[in-house]
Amino acid sequence: MITATDILQASERIRSVVRHTPVMTSRGVDVRAGAQVFFKCENFQGSGSFKLRGASNFVRCIPKADLSRGVVAFSSGNHAQAVAMACRQMGVQATIVMPTDAPSAKVAGTRAQGAAIVVYDRFKEDREAIGARIALETGATLIPPYDHPWTIAGQGTAALELLQEVPDLDALVTCVGGGGLVSGCGTIAKAMRPSVRVFGVEPELASDTFQSLQKGERVEIPPSATIADGLRSPKPGAITFPIMQRILDSVLLVSEDEIKDAMRFLAMRMKIVVEPSGAVSAAAVLNRKLPGEVKRIGVVLSGGNVDAALLAEVLAEG
Amino acid sequence: MITATDILQASERIRSVVRHTPVMTSRGVDVRAGAQVFFKCENFQGSGSFKLRGASNFVRCIPKADLSRGVVAFSSGNHAQAVAMACRQMGVQATIVMPTDAPSAKVAGTRAQGAAIVVYDRFKEDREAIGARIALETGATLIPPYDHPWTIAGQGTAALELLQEVPDLDALVTCVGGGGLVSGCGTIAKAMRPSVRVFGVEPELASDTFQSLQKGERVEIPPSATIADGLRSPKPGAITFPIMQRILDSVLLVSEDEIKDAMRFLAMRMKIVVEPSGAVSAAAVLNRKLPGEVKRIGVVLSGGNVDAALLAEVLAEG
Repeated sequence: MITATDILQASERIRSVVRHTPVMTSRGVDVRAGAQVFFKCENFQGSGSFKLRGASNFVRCIPKADLSRGVVAFSSGNHAQAVAMACRQMGVQATIVMPTDAPSAKVAGTRAQGAAIVVYDRFKEDREAIGARIALETGATLIPPYDHPWTIAGQGTAALELLQEVPDLDALVTCVGGGGLVSGCGTIAKAMRPSVRVFGVEPELASDTFQSLQKGERVEIPPSATIADGLRSPKPGAITFPIMQRILDSVLLVSEDEIKDAMRFLAMRMKIVVEPSGAVSAAAVLNRKLPGEVKRIGVVLSGGNVDAALLAEVLAEG
Repeated sequence: MITATDILQASERIRSVVRHTPVMTSRGVDVRAGAQVFFKCENFQGSGSFKLRGASNFVRCIPKADLSRGVVAFSSGNHAQAVAMACRQMGVQATIVMPTDAPSAKVAGTRAQGAAIVVYDRFKEDREAIGARIALETGATLIPPYDHPWTIAGQGTAALELLQEVPDLDALVTCVGGGGLVSGCGTIAKAMRPSVRVFGVEPELASDTFQSLQKGERVEIPPSATIADGLRSPKPGAITFPIMQRILDSVLLVSEDEIKDAMRFLAMRMKIVVEPSGAVSAAAVLNRKLPGEVKRIGVVLSGGNVDAALLAEVLAEG
């Protein structure tokens, strides 16, 4: 169980190592969304995504004796870079298990932070098993990408900052991969402002949480080819799912075209680079998928780590 | 003659209509630049560039009786959008004279603000003459893009904000087109911090101010094909040139490749979209063109209005 207190403590713990990211607004966005939109720009976060919050909180919660044996993490990229950066700051050895088709910018970013990288085939191998084996062999602590209270508490600090800056929101919108971000953000938002409505957003091609909430139990989907590489987790977490059942108003779905259009809109109108997973929440708002009565919307732009070639392709399609 | 007082007054005059843009930093930039770099992000300014500052100040300085006859401006794009936006805010009719080859994003942005647009061929026609004729025929007030004290004072407010936020700079760097930005920014920076060194940056392909300073008089160059479309003015202004002679340490030159590389670096590492003209100042810093003893550098990123197709092309080249 995660409480507002966990998130407030995480915020104190990581204050000196994460960036207090800006909240940005745009008249062009508001006109198109039919609402006032406040973007929490985690694309400007250290390591390029909100994942630094959870990773930093986690590493700082590990007992000192265990830390000396290092940490291990599996990730499509942003969690990897975040763990690597959090470890570099603490002088801890990190080993990262990454899929062979992870964006090269994310692999390079992880390596640049001094982490050791182990690759796997995400269509054939089980990254959790690989991570567990490394942890067993080396004594390293496994840092899960979303399904752990320390990770979730760290991610929630993004919404804490957003609501401190813009208290009177009607709704909070974040993307949903494994559910760590929305679980942490939704928990603190509901605590600070009980009337706030919390919406998760998934790609249509990776609607595991949408399906799970409909069915009332965790549904696993086949590996997804959505452009939003950070949201390809096959099912909600065991810890995040019951939190999401409690705090989510609903999960909204966006198409691949809507994701790419949102990336273009944010780049051209707001002058910010957002990765596909980061544009998913904006896509829901730009295409007016929220209830019409919601007029002040906080939107977490989760990250900005996109390959130059992919961004070029998306921009050229517009 | 422009003084710090003019810039302080401009700041008060436009406070409610321009954005206090963020100052952004990046470890990756600092490592590459060999110095601490503070980017004043005018790409996030309303209208997409610093030009809103000068235009807003100018429109607010026009006597009320004249304002009712509207205003006219000539511009490759950013000044156009800025005048159009400043006029919309005041309910004033704007007519903009734009070159036929202005970036379509800038033309569309200007039209969206409700301005009337008159196009001209920049290789054959004289935009100043066209603007003057319209002013004569309609009684509209001509708003020059850089060579006027009201414009220069407005542009200086960017550096005023930057030095208020980061007072202990060794150097201030801005791009140089007609010289309005660097004249205003350099004036207020030297007043606030006499030890600060002021550097202008031009594309090698549009080095009119560099040549003019060498020669000690205003040199006119042929129409330039630099990618930095905002910096193609053929010669320094009559008013800006003596100011630049006084405040500039030197003008640094950057190649077209350096400009494009800076655009890519800012997009991929800092997650911000900067237009070619806006990347010119960053290019000088990233390629260590400043003296080595300069360790804390304020850099104005002048704007972010770039066509999606051009940005895609630049990103794909990397």
